[in-house]
Amino acid sequence: MTNPQATTSPRTRDQRRADTLAMLSTPVRDVWVATASVADDGTAVPYLVPLSMAWIDDRVVLALEATSRTGRNLLATGTGRLSLGGTRDVVMIDADLERSVRVAEAPPEIAEGYAAQADWDPRPGGADDVYLVLRPRRIQAWREVDELPGRLLMCDGEWL
Amino acid sequence: MTNPQATTSPRTRDQRRADTLAMLSTPVRDVWVATASVADDGTAVPYLVPLSMAWIDDRVVLALEATSRTGRNLLATGTGRLSLGGTRDVVMIDADLERSVRVAEAPPEIAEGYAAQADWDPRPGGADDVYLVLRPRRIQAWREVDELPGRLLMCDGEWL
Repeated sequence: MTNPQATTSPRTRDQRRADTLAMLSTPVRDVWVATASVADDGTAVPYLVPLSMAWIDDRVVLALEATSRTGRNLLATGTGRLSLGGTRDVVMIDADLERSVRVAEAPPEIAEGYAAQADWDPRPGGADDVYLVLRPRRIQAWREVDELPGRLLMCDGEWL
Repeated sequence: MTNPQATTSPRTRDQRRADTLAMLSTPVRDVWVATASVADDGTAVPYLVPLSMAWIDDRVVLALEATSRTGRNLLATGTGRLSLGGTRDVVMIDADLERSVRVAEAPPEIAEGYAAQADWDPRPGGADDVYLVLRPRRIQAWREVDELPGRLLMCDGEWL
């Protein structure tokens, strides 16, 4: 079913999954992290920042101050929507917060894994920062309009 | 105050403003649009998609279905957070919805302006789509950590 020589044909699901996993594992991978809060008047308020990520044991791991706006939103709502790649090579990930670990107390697989993939290590001086471990629930990947059909790669945490 | 030969020095505010306006005016410019809604249980829910934009009369103009999730969120909350550029050449724009115009009823400056900058024109077949005109309220621009100081370029709708 794959069609390796055609760069203009829509990719198969298998290709998109392989491309997505490769993207998630790239060194110095940044991710746009959208989160939300509710204002005092009940209005939903969006937030968005770029952050460095690591892909460890099928989870997206972020490192940030727990008191940052993104940290507070993720801890309060338990959910974020992440995008990788460019606007014409899109990977969208809806993810749930699975675990929050203080940097000073993190197990080596998280701390070493994060430092190995990201271009910084929060441990020196960031003992009060947290690693937030996000479990992908839904993943979509597409490039151009012709790839909108078939863009769903993961649903309810399961690869299709 | 400008320092044109140094690519590693933090840019001045004037440079960042010029770079930001150039980015906003680029043909086929995409923008990440973060919006939010409130779920039935009161939890804030983030949303994020890439969309084509146009920069018309100091406003960000999007074209989309009013019933799309981004359309509904913007119409309900009146606010979005947009990002242009990459994760290491960031422009963040907090914007307020100023005006919503049905594509079929749009004045030429919006319809022609959008078609001229974006790589598509919603008019054929999209009569029920809307142009959403967003007024920037707050703009920040930075590349790397050394540019975090001085990243605020617009506050309360006024360029600093």
